[in-house]
Amino acid sequence: MPKVLITTIPFADKNKLPLYLLEENNIEYLINPINKKLTEGELTDMVADFDVIIAGTEPITKKVMDSAFNLKMISRVGIGLDSVDLIEAEKKRITVSYTPDAPAPAVAELTIGMMLTLLRSVHVSNSQMHSGEWHRFFGRRLSEVTIGIIGVGRIGRGVLEHLKGFGNPKILVNDISIKNDISNKFNVEWSSKEEIYKQSDIVSLHLPLTGKTKDMIKKDHLLSMKTDAIIINTSRGGIINESDLYEVMQSGHLSGAAIDVFNNEPYSGDLNKIERCLLTAHMGSMSVDCRTRMEIEATEEAVRFLTGKTLKGLVPEEEYAVQREGL
Amino acid sequence: MPKVLITTIPFADKNKLPLYLLEENNIEYLINPINKKLTEGELTDMVADFDVIIAGTEPITKKVMDSAFNLKMISRVGIGLDSVDLIEAEKKRITVSYTPDAPAPAVAELTIGMMLTLLRSVHVSNSQMHSGEWHRFFGRRLSEVTIGIIGVGRIGRGVLEHLKGFGNPKILVNDISIKNDISNKFNVEWSSKEEIYKQSDIVSLHLPLTGKTKDMIKKDHLLSMKTDAIIINTSRGGIINESDLYEVMQSGHLSGAAIDVFNNEPYSGDLNKIERCLLTAHMGSMSVDCRTRMEIEATEEAVRFLTGKTLKGLVPEEEYAVQREGL
Repeated sequence: MPKVLITTIPFADKNKLPLYLLEENNIEYLINPINKKLTEGELTDMVADFDVIIAGTEPITKKVMDSAFNLKMISRVGIGLDSVDLIEAEKKRITVSYTPDAPAPAVAELTIGMMLTLLRSVHVSNSQMHSGEWHRFFGRRLSEVTIGIIGVGRIGRGVLEHLKGFGNPKILVNDISIKNDISNKFNVEWSSKEEIYKQSDIVSLHLPLTGKTKDMIKKDHLLSMKTDAIIINTSRGGIINESDLYEVMQSGHLSGAAIDVFNNEPYSGDLNKIERCLLTAHMGSMSVDCRTRMEIEATEEAVRFLTGKTLKGLVPEEEYAVQREGL
Repeated sequence: MPKVLITTIPFADKNKLPLYLLEENNIEYLINPINKKLTEGELTDMVADFDVIIAGTEPITKKVMDSAFNLKMISRVGIGLDSVDLIEAEKKRITVSYTPDAPAPAVAELTIGMMLTLLRSVHVSNSQMHSGEWHRFFGRRLSEVTIGIIGVGRIGRGVLEHLKGFGNPKILVNDISIKNDISNKFNVEWSSKEEIYKQSDIVSLHLPLTGKTKDMIKKDHLLSMKTDAIIINTSRGGIINESDLYEVMQSGHLSGAAIDVFNNEPYSGDLNKIERCLLTAHMGSMSVDCRTRMEIEATEEAVRFLTGKTLKGLVPEEEYAVQREGL
């Protein structure tokens, strides 16, 4: 009987279908018994017996794989692959699949909500009101500001789609290369990242964490932004240097930030001392519909693998190439 | 030299043009020296000398007008007229003007931000994260829920416009009468208020405060809503009965509420004990562009009045009719 370790949590919380899929295929499973994001050590200690991991964002490193004697497949619930050592998986002939489309709609919506919250200081007013303090903050509207979107893949594109309903804000975009379908569909201006930092009132990141994006935004980049600019990261911790962000905001620069992703999760760091920093617990993909779709897709893929069917979510060669260039 | 009392605050904070307009027309002015929303008593004590009030939402009642021996005009910065006794003003031949279009874009954007925040529990996660607590909340997306909009005037229409960029959510609308331009432009279903309470996941109010809307939503209406429904009030305090809302939420009903307007402002009441209640300090119109436009329009109207020019923002007869029916 094949054995599946489900590390991502919550899992099958709102919809039991993934568990039924495993059971009706006589697949044994264990859901993360620690009930929080596993460390490399915890995962290493746990992984020996399993044929497949249905994985969250915990580190699946060489060390983990060295202890995973039976591991033949990793099925990632989500899009990011920064947590999986693809090169090592390839060496060990471990198949890796993912669910790149499923999380995008939820992340894109959350991003718009964060833009509107930060522009109007809703989070600060809410915390003041809950302590009995009344201050009417001035804010800005989306159609009055310049919005810089770095990364216009599945999620960045969703953000552009939503922005269509908000008049005609000036939108600057950046990606590895110019994408004609984006230029054709949306009223955007392609810009360098440096220009985006300088000119934008809102900078929003929709990028994978790779060797090239790790610490992409450091102190100098933050300081090159407008004093009252806003930065939003719903992609991966590590792309903005956290301690630089803390230091820069502590000094009074930037009017707000929304951070959903962190170097170490669960997060409990200095950013929580900054009231105008809107913090959420890696909830980008956590709409019931998207999360359910991610879990079902990743489980179906694991079942396909274990029952010898053709896979649908294999990680493409480009992702391996990115890691070969150095994560 | 004519004298203008500016009661609304902040005033000319981001843009000094309103003050220049007054000065270049040799109009003397006083900006609310108490620097908070005036009570009826405070305003009564202050008003004797002035020809014009450039007014916020403080009560301009018979008592106030009885003491305002020189008052010839009230120029409201904003749209709501619940604070002005129009019937008494008419009797005393006091002209009343307002700026009904200017605040709408800012209120509509804030409303969308509140919808997204409440659907994803961003406000609750933010307050947890700032106390070092990590919990990943499930949420819902706009396109997955039924949205009920009560009142589709200038602001409700703006909300519908923004929602166009979010897939195709099911939208129920209600107003005093069916508006064909809304049906033609948006994919909405006209419904009774009772149906909206029952069927919606989000109920958002975009109504004036009148005799008919005062206490429109009481305990029974709130209880008729879905257990996990969300209610948003960016229109006027008093439309939802505040103590009923507190009681109902305290009992665990409703998954969230966003309240920007209160019976008594500045607000400091029981709702601040409820973490899932998102509270803001009457900030609906407080985008720099809308607030500036409101202040300039109201000041220009006061100047037109004092220099004998034709007025552009006279309150129409319908508004008097509403008050004749009983505020």
